[in-house]
Order: sequence, then C-alpha cells, then structure tokens
Amino acid sequence: MIIVMALDATAEQVDAVVNRLREIGADAHVSQGQRRTVIGAVGDRGQIQQLPWEAMAGVERAVPVLKEFKFVSREFQQDDSVIHVGNVPVGGGHFAMMAGPCAVESRDQLMASAEAVKKAGAVILRGDAFKPRTSPYSFQGLGEEGLQYLKEARELLGMPFIAEVLDPRDVELVAEYADLIRVGTRNMANFTLLREIGRQNKPVLLKRGFTATVDEWLNAAEYIYKEGNHDIIMCERGIRTYEPSTRNTLDISAVAVVKRLSHLPVIVDPSHSGGHRYLVAPLAKAAVAIGADGLLIDVHQAPETAKVDGAQALLPDDFSELMDDLRKIGHAVGVSI
Amino acid sequence: MIIVMALDATAEQVDAVVNRLREIGADAHVSQGQRRTVIGAVGDRGQIQQLPWEAMAGVERAVPVLKEFKFVSREFQQDDSVIHVGNVPVGGGHFAMMAGPCAVESRDQLMASAEAVKKAGAVILRGDAFKPRTSPYSFQGLGEEGLQYLKEARELLGMPFIAEVLDPRDVELVAEYADLIRVGTRNMANFTLLREIGRQNKPVLLKRGFTATVDEWLNAAEYIYKEGNHDIIMCERGIRTYEPSTRNTLDISAVAVVKRLSHLPVIVDPSHSGGHRYLVAPLAKAAVAIGADGLLIDVHQAPETAKVDGAQALLPDDFSELMDDLRKIGHAVGVSI
Amino acid sequence: MIIVMALDATAEQVDAVVNRLREIGADAHVSQGQRRTVIGAVGDRGQIQQLPWEAMAGVERAVPVLKEFKFVSREFQQDDSVIHVGNVPVGGGHFAMMAGPCAVESRDQLMASAEAVKKAGAVILRGDAFKPRTSPYSFQGLGEEGLQYLKEARELLGMPFIAEVLDPRDVELVAEYADLIRVGTRNMANFTLLREIGRQNKPVLLKRGFTATVDEWLNAAEYIYKEGNHDIIMCERGIRTYEPSTRNTLDISAVAVVKRLSHLPVIVDPSHSGGHRYLVAPLAKAAVAIGADGLLIDVHQAPETAKVDGAQALLPDDFSELMDDLRKIGHAVGVSI
Amino acid sequence: MIIVMALDATAEQVDAVVNRLREIGADAHVSQGQRRTVIGAVGDRGQIQQLPWEAMAGVERAVPVLKEFKFVSREFQQDDSVIHVGNVPVGGGHFAMMAGPCAVESRDQLMASAEAVKKAGAVILRGDAFKPRTSPYSFQGLGEEGLQYLKEARELLGMPFIAEVLDPRDVELVAEYADLIRVGTRNMANFTLLREIGRQNKPVLLKRGFTATVDEWLNAAEYIYKEGNHDIIMCERGIRTYEPSTRNTLDISAVAVVKRLSHLPVIVDPSHSGGHRYLVAPLAKAAVAIGADGLLIDVHQAPETAKVDGAQALLPDDFSELMDDLRKIGHAVGVSI
Repeated sequence: MIIVMALDATAEQVDAVVNRLREIGADAHVSQGQRRTVIGAVGDRGQIQQLPWEAMAGVERAVPVLKEFKFVSREFQQDDSVIHVGNVPVGGGHFAMMAGPCAVESRDQLMASAEAVKKAGAVILRGDAFKPRTSPYSFQGLGEEGLQYLKEARELLGMPFIAEVLDPRDVELVAEYADLIRVGTRNMANFTLLREIGRQNKPVLLKRGFTATVDEWLNAAEYIYKEGNHDIIMCERGIRTYEPSTRNTLDISAVAVVKRLSHLPVIVDPSHSGGHRYLVAPLAKAAVAIGADGLLIDVHQAPETAKVDGAQALLPDDFSELMDDLRKIGHAVGVSI
Repeated sequence: MIIVMALDATAEQVDAVVNRLREIGADAHVSQGQRRTVIGAVGDRGQIQQLPWEAMAGVERAVPVLKEFKFVSREFQQDDSVIHVGNVPVGGGHFAMMAGPCAVESRDQLMASAEAVKKAGAVILRGDAFKPRTSPYSFQGLGEEGLQYLKEARELLGMPFIAEVLDPRDVELVAEYADLIRVGTRNMANFTLLREIGRQNKPVLLKRGFTATVDEWLNAAEYIYKEGNHDIIMCERGIRTYEPSTRNTLDISAVAVVKRLSHLPVIVDPSHSGGHRYLVAPLAKAAVAIGADGLLIDVHQAPETAKVDGAQALLPDDFSELMDDLRKIGHAVGVSI
Repeated sequence: MIIVMALDATAEQVDAVVNRLREIGADAHVSQGQRRTVIGAVGDRGQIQQLPWEAMAGVERAVPVLKEFKFVSREFQQDDSVIHVGNVPVGGGHFAMMAGPCAVESRDQLMASAEAVKKAGAVILRGDAFKPRTSPYSFQGLGEEGLQYLKEARELLGMPFIAEVLDPRDVELVAEYADLIRVGTRNMANFTLLREIGRQNKPVLLKRGFTATVDEWLNAAEYIYKEGNHDIIMCERGIRTYEPSTRNTLDISAVAVVKRLSHLPVIVDPSHSGGHRYLVAPLAKAAVAIGADGLLIDVHQAPETAKVDGAQALLPDDFSELMDDLRKIGHAVGVSI
Repeated sequence: MIIVMALDATAEQVDAVVNRLREIGADAHVSQGQRRTVIGAVGDRGQIQQLPWEAMAGVERAVPVLKEFKFVSREFQQDDSVIHVGNVPVGGGHFAMMAGPCAVESRDQLMASAEAVKKAGAVILRGDAFKPRTSPYSFQGLGEEGLQYLKEARELLGMPFIAEVLDPRDVELVAEYADLIRVGTRNMANFTLLREIGRQNKPVLLKRGFTATVDEWLNAAEYIYKEGNHDIIMCERGIRTYEPSTRNTLDISAVAVVKRLSHLPVIVDPSHSGGHRYLVAPLAKAAVAIGADGLLIDVHQAPETAKVDGAQALLPDDFSELMDDLRKIGHAVGVSI
C-alpha cells in the first residue's frame, strides 16, 4: 500500500500513519518528495488493506499495490486450472462448447435443442430452470421441473449440463441436478449466494457482473474458492457501456487480462453480450482466436416463440455452420474444438 | 410497441407480425414509409412486451412505447406516496434525515454516533449489522448482535432505525428488528431478495444499483410492490462511470426523473456516491435543493478507526454544522428539515 | 511517481529503473516488500512523468502522485480567480447567469430572447453563430452575421455576450466580437484550438468534454493558461454514461472536485446535460446549492421552431420564475444572484 | 420518425403535430393506443429529422426510425468499398497491416522501425509528425521534418505511409506528403477538420472517438464523404468504460456492427485500445478472426526510450512472430495476410 499525504500534511500526521503501521507489525518507508510525503507500507497485505487510511488526518489517498484476491491468482498457482464438468475437461488447452436454449420452456423444446447442439459438436448442454428477469411480469422459469428435463437430456445424450441458481435456498437443489452451477451476471456480487455455492462439491461458472471490473470479478471468485470450492470457470458476457448498438459491449480484452492474473479458465458468452443473432458468430470467432477456453451459446429451434432472449438465439443449422468455422480457427491457434 | 421492419422485409414477414399481434388480441397499425414499414402495436402492454418480436424474420427492432412498471408509476397514482418509518413520515413534502455509522461495530460506537446524530436533528438512525464486501477478507458485520444494539438505541432515543438485509433467509429477522429494511446497491437486481421483502409488513429503502438505469430501478420497486409491500423509498447513491475522482458519480438528475415517473419518495446518499468526506456536504446541499425527500449520511465518532468506509464518514460536529446549512436551503425550497 | 515492479522483476531491472531516475537528476526511494519492489521517484515532476516507465523491463505499472497541471491548480494559486467578462465578474463569490438562445437564428429571434433574459436578471447573453452538429445535414449557424446581431444586442442592452468558436482560423474573428469565447464539449481536447485561444486577450469558457475526466479537463485549461490567457471559466455540462433518461448525466460532484483542485470559477449548463425542459430548473437549483459560480441556460421564445436543441430550451416566463427560485437558494448559501 | 405523445396530450396537440408534418409534405399515421397516441411520420428523412418535435407541446419523445447518415450506409451501396492507399487495396477482402512507431522521433528511429515492419510483412507504414497530447508538457511531434522522414522511408522501402493531422491549416501539408491521412480519436467530432479533409484527394483513416457511438462515428464519416472524399477507412481503437485494467475497452463488436451498417472497410488498432504490450497480440488475433480489414500496430526498436506510448509498442521480433500467427488465422477465415 502506498499512502500519499496531502500537500499540507504536518509532521505529526505523517508520524501518526507511520505509528499505525508499526502497531500492526508493518514497515513504513517514508519518501519526502519536493511537495509531498509518500509512505510505502510493507507487511501483511490483508491487515494493511483493511484499515481506513484515507480517513486519517493528512492522508490524501491510499493506493493498493497488491490485488486483494490470493487463491485465484497466478501468483498462487502458476499452472492453468483444468475443471472437470462431468467428464468434460475445461481449461489448460481444453476447449468446451456449451450450447442450448436460454430457458427450459418444455420437455420437447429442450430435447429438440439438446439433440441439435450435441449433433453439431457441443459438449455441455445449457438450459435454465430459474430465470432472473428485469420485469416481474416476465417468464421466471419452470423450476425443478426444468431441472428434471435437463437430467433426462443428460441421460439420453450422455452430455453434462449447466444451469443457473438464483436463490441461496436453491443451491443444494441445483447442485444435486446440474453438472455445472451457473452464477448469473446479476448475482456476481451476491456474496450470500457465492458463499453457499462455495460449500458445494460441484463446479461453478461465474459470469462477470455486467458492470464489474475484472478485479471485482476475481474477488467474487475468491469468495467461492475460499469456502472450499476450487472448480471455478470464469465467463465474460459483455459489460454495460454507453454504446446502444449492442445489448452489452463484449470486453474481449478481459479474456487475456484474466488469463494473465489468474489460473482459472475463461469462456465467453457471445449471445448475451451482443444481443443480436447476427453478432453471435463474429464474436464467437474472436473469442476462439483470443484464447477463450470455451463458449456459451443460446440455440433455439424456433427463436420467434422463445420465452426469453429469442432475438439472440441461433438456429440449429446456423450453430452447426458456426462450429465448422470455429474448428478452423481453433486449428489455427492450436486448440481442438 | 413500435415494430420497425428491416429494409428488405417481405410482405409475408410484415403479415406474420400483424397476424401474431392479432392472435394475442392486439391491433396493428401499419405505416408504409419510403424505405421501411413500421408497425404500431396497440393492446395489452404486458402481453405485447413479453413476445420476442426481434426474433421474428424481417424485424429490425422493437421499440417499447410504454414502461414495463405499472404500480409504482405516476400514471397509476398521481399523488406522492408518504411512507411512515416508525412515526416518521417520508415523502410528499416530508423530509427525513437518516444518519449514523455505516456499520455497527460495537455497542459503544453505535450509541455515541446515535446520540450525536439525534442531537443534530437526524430522525432515523442508520447502522448495518450485515455488510456486503467486495473482498471476502473484509469485515462482514456483527449480525443479530448488531440488530440488538440498534434496537436498544431506538428505545433509548425514541428514533426508528434502518438496516440492510443481504440474504433472503435473514429477511424476517431484519424485518422484526428494523423500522426500515434496506436493499443495498449490489442487491437491487437480486429478485429473490426483493420478492421476500415484498411479503413483509415493513417499509423498504431500495438503493439504486450502481449500474442500473432508472427504468431498471423502478422495475425492481415494482417487484416489491407487486408482492404486496407498497411502502418503498427510492435511494439514489451514485452510478458507475469512467470518472475516477469520485467513488461513484452522483446522478442528481435521477431525483427529478424518478419524481416525474413515479409517486414514490426519493432520497440521496451523498456519502457512498462521493466516497470522500469533503464531498458529503456539497452533495447533500444539492440534493435538498433539487427536491430529495431525505438524505442518508454516514457519521462516525472516529472515522480513522472505522471498519467500513471511514474515508467518507462525517464527524458529529461537521454533521451538526451541515444540518444548519441544510435547514437554510430547505427553507428556500419550502421544505422543513 | 511510484513505480511498481513486477513480481518476477530481477535486481538488474530494479537497478535499471533506479539508474534511469538518477540520470535525470531524480532520487529513487526503493521499498522492498514481501513480494514486490516499489520505487518512489522524487524530483522534477515534468521530467519524471514524460518517461515511459511502463515500457521498461520488469515494471508493472507507474502511478503518478502529482497531477500534471500546475498553473490552474490550487497549489499554484490559493485564492479563487475572479474573471471579468466585459464588466461582469465571475468567481470568488460572484455569480453570473448566462442565458439566451442556443443558436442565433435571426436578428428578431435573438433580440426577443435577449430582452427577455436581461429583464429576468441574466447578466451575460448566450447565442452561437457557429454550431458543431453530429449530422452534416443539420443547421450549422449563421457565421459572422450571427456575431453582428450579438454585437447589436450588446450595444442595445449593455450586456456582454458569449459565443462558441469551432475553427482555429475563426478564433481571432470570434475574439474580436465576443466578450467570452466558448470552447464546446466536442473541442475540449482540440489542442490546436486551445492553443490559438490561449493567445487571445479575451476570457474563455471551457466546457468539459462529455467524456473527459476532471483531470483531462484541467489539463485542457492548462493548455490555454500556458499560452498566456489566464481568464478561464470551467463549465460542467454532463458526461456520457449508460443512463438513457437524460441526454447526459450531470456530474454535479465535479463542481466541488474542481473547486478543490483549482482556483478557476466553475459554472454549470443544466440545459445540455439534461436535454429535457423539465430538468433545467431542478438541475439549476442543485448547481446553485453546491456552489457553482454561474449557470448557462438556453432560453427561446418559441422552442418548437428552434433550429437547435428546442427540446431543452426554457420559455422566457419559465426562466423568469426560475430566477426567483434561484435567488432564494442563493440567499441560503450566501450568494447574490 | 415515431412521435410518442404524452399521456395527457390533448387532441389539439396531436393535430398540431400532424399539421406540422403536412406542412413539410410528410404523411402522418396516427395510432390511438389504450393510453397514448403515437404518430408515425413518413416522408423526407432529412426534413423530418431536423425539426424539434420534442419541443412541441404534448410530445413526450421522438424516436428516429432511420439513421441520419446516407452515403456511407449499406443501403446506399451494397458492395464493400475497396480503398487504395498508394498501391495497397484495403477492404472487400483485402487485408492491410499498418505498422511502425507511434511518433516519428528521429530519422534513424523511423528507418529502423520501418525496415523491421516491412520485413515482417506490414504493407503500410505508420508514424506521426503531429501528436495530440493530454498534457501541454508532453512531446508534440517533429512537424514537417517528421513528414520528410516518412517520405524518405516510403521512397526507400516502396511502402505508403499514414500520418495524423490535427489542425485544419495543416491538412493540405499532410495530404501532400502522406498516402493516408489519419483523423485521431480526439478529432472524430472536429467537424471543421473533417470538412477540410473531405475536400482532399487522399484517402482518410477515421478513428472512432473513444466515447463515440457507432452512429456518431458513421455520421463523422458522412461529413467527409459529403464533401467529396469517398476514400474512408474506419478504425476501431477502444472506447472509454469504467474498466481500469485496459487503457480503453476494445469494442470488438463494432467491427461487425459497422460492416452491417456501412460499406466502408474497418480496421482495428490493438495498441491504443489495450495500452499494454501483452494485449496487442491477443487483440490482433481477435480482430482478424472477426473480419477486420486491417490492423494498425505500434512497433518500436526501443520502447523504453519512446517519447509516446512506449508501454504498448511491440518489439520488431514480437511483431514478426505475431504476423506468423495472424497469417494462420487469416487462412482459417479466408483472408490473405
């Protein structure tokens, strides 16, 4: 931590900061500049970062030098984590295509989509039983009935599935059914939910909050890791910006940033970031080229009847064609799709 | 809903949209422009907005004309709502100063702050027992013990209190103790929590998500209202922007925008938006002048020892001085503080 | 400047940074932390900040401790600057209402608005002869003819005027006519234009770029100051965010932030930030309460015929009523309006 | 244009809008909804969009259905434009790598970089003689001397070059020397400069303003096109968001959005968007995969001595390696690099 003193800070105020650091067993390196004094705090990161330095008299600002997260960082683990979803490895060179309908609407709708994505080469089925909706008047999902259908699809097709959980009281239920639990973008900072998931023995896909920084996202992963669940896959899905032509702005750079800071796999959701069908294929290609460990794509047999997000769902034929294109790019960057 | 067809949309595609509208009992007004066809959909708002128009072939975009929320809108109720927190009215010309420490850290710390803010003129005490923290290594609150201290302060000082709830499983507990339940900025779109709170018989303060639009915020209020709890106070607390000199950017305009769209009271939190002590007083003054129905301000006896957000807490004397200044501005705009 | 070395930085890389600092005559304070080395650079700010520290091997990031701007800072000048526009003082406790039509459209239109705002209490007339428009098909202004009308209005009413300049080749022309030259939001980072204005002997109003940080805005003021023109008024006019209910988000905090960092006066433009007539009065009130040194308000006799921004123009009667309200708030905060 | 009337709009107010439309020769399609009246305006786009509909009594908002730009749109020209920079085609399947130092610092520095990028496969040389800098104390470029060196490099290596112009008074000078004139991100909305460039007979590269929407960017291109210069290349270079880990957030989706809306080529600048050397290669790969028509990359022999943006410059060897990787991805997506 670097503590920058105000221009008019007194010697007593500098001493107070130095003494406070010493009280917690840290060292203080004082640099007396031409105009300001700057104090470098060296010691236990956790203890130093918890104190309200900016509240002390004469302190202008405190700049952290180290990140707050530890276990999910590359510093803690050099090698890429490989997460097993059912029998499907993700990360460390293993690419996983996850596809299916945004929401489970009926048994037939799910099965039709599941067979189509399986045939085209997807290895994990997506489909939600619980949906968070901006308006209370929108379809909220089938609940446990939806999970039953997903389980049936898994048994029929030999394909693990991913499903979202919204409520800490549903975590055990979803963890019992699903192979990969999803934390949606609106719940990335729902620490109550994160802690509950951290106690499960099932891998989790952590979507980035659509207005979270990369650091906040990795801190959210740290919550889960710290509770004991180390099988975390990160999922970039677009951030909120001023640009209206896309639903969100896919922060493609975040794939490379997270890979530098963390050992966890990172996948991309091109459906929810773009929000338009015509953007799914271009964004998916970019994601493979930049080194994403997988993709999460909405596929629907009849998007014009979809109860959620039909405008961005691919038709099965388009998805199949996209898989062919992605295989070529995968080959170019050394990844088998 | 206005449905704009693509340039190359065929007559069949236009007919398909018109037929779909008729199927749900709505009227379709077709305007054939020089280059595009535009279809005005007239009928039941809820039904029309739920269908995936943009997923239909030939549709370029669908522009909603009406808002999704109903009960919290001015259309539904012309007059300002007045919410009673204990015996303190908020809204409809009644201004409420809510102040106290960000977190309850100990019985003594709470009592000292509570007495100070009461003396200066605050009418509702703030203090949290559960804290959502970006890092899992930060102080997370005293839990029920904190609520006990708040209850004691209420009895001693005759002052209702507000406290945050994070977990749907804690809603009943917090509702039992507190006079006003707070939904924090990170939980504005935690629909599970909102629904649980909607079933309580206690007023709720709904903070704006720091990246929520005003419409999303009012939709969140609608979730609570729809479950039966109509006693909702909105709280603007700054939004995330690119500007680094403040913790968040206080969207002061939102006070006027919400008052135009909704009958609910709106208050402002100048402490968490600015993030620096020196900004609290200026922002509080602006809030009173623009017509906010109250303020929520962090006050701490010794900010340099605060476990949460000390950098933005006012000292009791500064708070007292601010109250004097606010009374003058309140007088100028016709509000009694 | 604080230079944070990477985790795996070698002793040679640390030495290279230290040596580079010594070469330019600066001191290097090396703090060896548990995991990282941090180097505090102390010496001539300008020289240190110009070198590409982050490009050196082993450097993770360089954090500036001091701001880049000097002359416009409070460090350089403690007392508030008072700028004289014609015979009207702005800043240091002097409040100035600037009002009039967004664009000069005709002699009659200008005169009618000018008389109305003068009567209501405005002290500086606004009206543009050159307009920057997003679309090349929009009205671009009357040019020198518009300046002639403004000059006439000044003579008739004894009221100085402000007008925008867009092109460095027009700077002398506009400076000859106008009492206060305006740099619009789109040109805040047009350094060519800033330098030309810096050479004039007329005060300048520098609007904040709608996506500029406060630091970038003060750096732009520094460009003008450095060329010799010290008569600069800052104008906050809203920044670009994700929120769609307002044209821009008025960053009301910026008034307090700039006043802390700089000695220059700061005014607010509530018309262009909100973008809707109903927001002008509420935002103007907030601006006076927070301590703005003036306001810039669009007033038009017949907004529904306005060639530019009619939707946000006040009618003369509304403006007159607003002036009465502002006088009361001004009285409450100790400012004469 | 869709004109949405307010809830309480009177029949007279609706008639006034309809009459105004008829006065300008447009048709009005009136839809009477359950709560609101909506008027579809059909007629000459330019005329309708110029009027201040939202300023008329009883109008709540006006929603444009058509874009404001015409000539640069796909509606106007179906086929991709191919722009010739010297003898190098860009667009319509032709990929162009543009590389070199950010700024020309000396003859030797430029030549060394130019030879290196040429050898690695770049086809257009970049290097600026005029630099816009946030701080007035930063290096501002060599001016015409820099253009001389670029001309020499062109003659020596048979490679056209691109250079930025900042001042409308320098446009003819830069156009005389350079093969491709660059408009920088800070000048995208400098309409004075755009118009001057629109009168030149040299191709122009138009960088996206770092806070411009795609529509505003295409409107800026329209300014240039309308003056007679049709040889425009668009360049995405990152937009300003709240995320601090990158200098800007590369809006990779914009490549696909612009290609859908316009016939102009689109290239990507991965150096200025990421702001860190380690991000250049990943972002360049994503850009090729999504279908960009070229790249603009900073390459410097000794980034740690660079006068501008050294932290993001690639070393020649890294650039050469990147070219090999890009050729493979290009092959996978059917483009020859």
